[in-house]
Amino acid sequence: MKEETPDIKELQQRIEELEKLLRVSMVLNSSLRLEDVLVMVLDQAMDTLQAEAGTLWLFTEDGSELLPLVARGPKADALKGLRLKRKEGLAGQVADSMDPVLISDVAKDPRWAKRFDDATGFVTRSLLCVPMINKDKSIGCLQLINKQGGQLFSERDLHLSMSLAGQSAVVIENSQLYSRLDLLLTSLIRTLSSALDARDPYTQGHSERVSKYSVAIAKGMGLPAEELDSIEKIALLHDIGKIGVRDNVLLQQGPLDDEQWEMMKSHTVVGARILNSIEPKSL
Amino acid sequence: MKEETPDIKELQQRIEELEKLLRVSMVLNSSLRLEDVLVMVLDQAMDTLQAEAGTLWLFTEDGSELLPLVARGPKADALKGLRLKRKEGLAGQVADSMDPVLISDVAKDPRWAKRFDDATGFVTRSLLCVPMINKDKSIGCLQLINKQGGQLFSERDLHLSMSLAGQSAVVIENSQLYSRLDLLLTSLIRTLSSALDARDPYTQGHSERVSKYSVAIAKGMGLPAEELDSIEKIALLHDIGKIGVRDNVLLQQGPLDDEQWEMMKSHTVVGARILNSIEPKSL
Repeated sequence: MKEETPDIKELQQRIEELEKLLRVSMVLNSSLRLEDVLVMVLDQAMDTLQAEAGTLWLFTEDGSELLPLVARGPKADALKGLRLKRKEGLAGQVADSMDPVLISDVAKDPRWAKRFDDATGFVTRSLLCVPMINKDKSIGCLQLINKQGGQLFSERDLHLSMSLAGQSAVVIENSQLYSRLDLLLTSLIRTLSSALDARDPYTQGHSERVSKYSVAIAKGMGLPAEELDSIEKIALLHDIGKIGVRDNVLLQQGPLDDEQWEMMKSHTVVGARILNSIEPKSL
Repeated sequence: MKEETPDIKELQQRIEELEKLLRVSMVLNSSLRLEDVLVMVLDQAMDTLQAEAGTLWLFTEDGSELLPLVARGPKADALKGLRLKRKEGLAGQVADSMDPVLISDVAKDPRWAKRFDDATGFVTRSLLCVPMINKDKSIGCLQLINKQGGQLFSERDLHLSMSLAGQSAVVIENSQLYSRLDLLLTSLIRTLSSALDARDPYTQGHSERVSKYSVAIAKGMGLPAEELDSIEKIALLHDIGKIGVRDNVLLQQGPLDDEQWEMMKSHTVVGARILNSIEPKSL
């Protein structure tokens, strides 16, 4: 039996694809911020597959709906605010069943053609939709429309996009985990600071307002998103030292006497001590 | 001018390597827990490079020292607790300079040979040490010793391990970021709960103790590490409702009257309301 000789061109193409996938993997891992990661996933996919338009669909936390979280292309705005039921449309079908769909040439499939002209409002020539699967669970799908330069998507593109969607699913889940932890931290700080504010009827809602104004000022100063996040949390905690002020001072009606006034002022020292004992000092 | 024909075997070998790197990338992304990630990095590196022994060295947060955070092989235990100065030893030299070192055949380089027999206590035949670099910054290095089956490490192995170390550096930084956020959350909860406990002299240190015992019980029940982490935090927060109990009840010397007793008991309701307003409900 003669062994088939591998085609050099074929091997070189495969190497090129794998190198692309590895580069994509490095890019996707360059941030843990969910918003950044989602944009990177779609941009990398469109770039790698040379797509003219694309949409990244993710299931809501309970899995009942599918949202177009990032979209690119001439009709991308039309998708804004759209919510699909779990199995609705092509995206729902692919994300739910985990079976990818390739319609290489829409012109040769009038049934699909009609469907996509209606849905997207521009001429769909070629279409790819692959599920994003992590640990045997689908988190959504990646939809790519029209290959650049008048070309059509091929079986090869389908496989490449499936690898890419697999990598993306893992990276997205990690950034979701990170974002949820960050959300939990902010929510806990917000809740505790508002419970503390509530002890003193004069300052109800005060920390929340200070935080909001601080973020607005920082934004106006052009500080980066990561710093805005920190400032939001830190400002919420600025009166945390009130935890150590006794009710008879905090709830006093009318002016404070000298001793009470010293106790009231000490809340900044108590607050500094509390915040200083928190580790790590930086993220 | 004749173009050189690529060697098919060479191309196939390259494909195999790239596929390995992609698989490794998926494995490394499967967890954000720093301890898990560090073990995976070394295991994947040793597996991919077929090394008999290996060490993952990471700089301390201030970059002044290098610690062998994971080690595998017959003499791995000897490394426990070791701390190198930033530029100390081969690991320090590679991690600091970011220049990889390959000593394919130690027997042919008696200067190195002596050094490693002294350091590791077993016969080093072949050695690889590559820096782990993310965003132009070194976070440590990966050291691999003796290729399995009596083979020697090659230039090819060096390049493969450098790609792998690059991927690993990115993944390790992400899990460090996640771990620091988790640490910050725990530290904040611990500090606040202890500040609240301190309002009531009877219960000073109480939440900390409840947390410690809860984790010990959960560990005894064989619960997984992630749940132990949650239980530690939740137990620290179990008396958070005391934030809403007035000083005249909380600090009352002697028995409480009926009304005061109702107020004291209401701290569980206040606590439930506070914790219930925290989002997200699960991680």
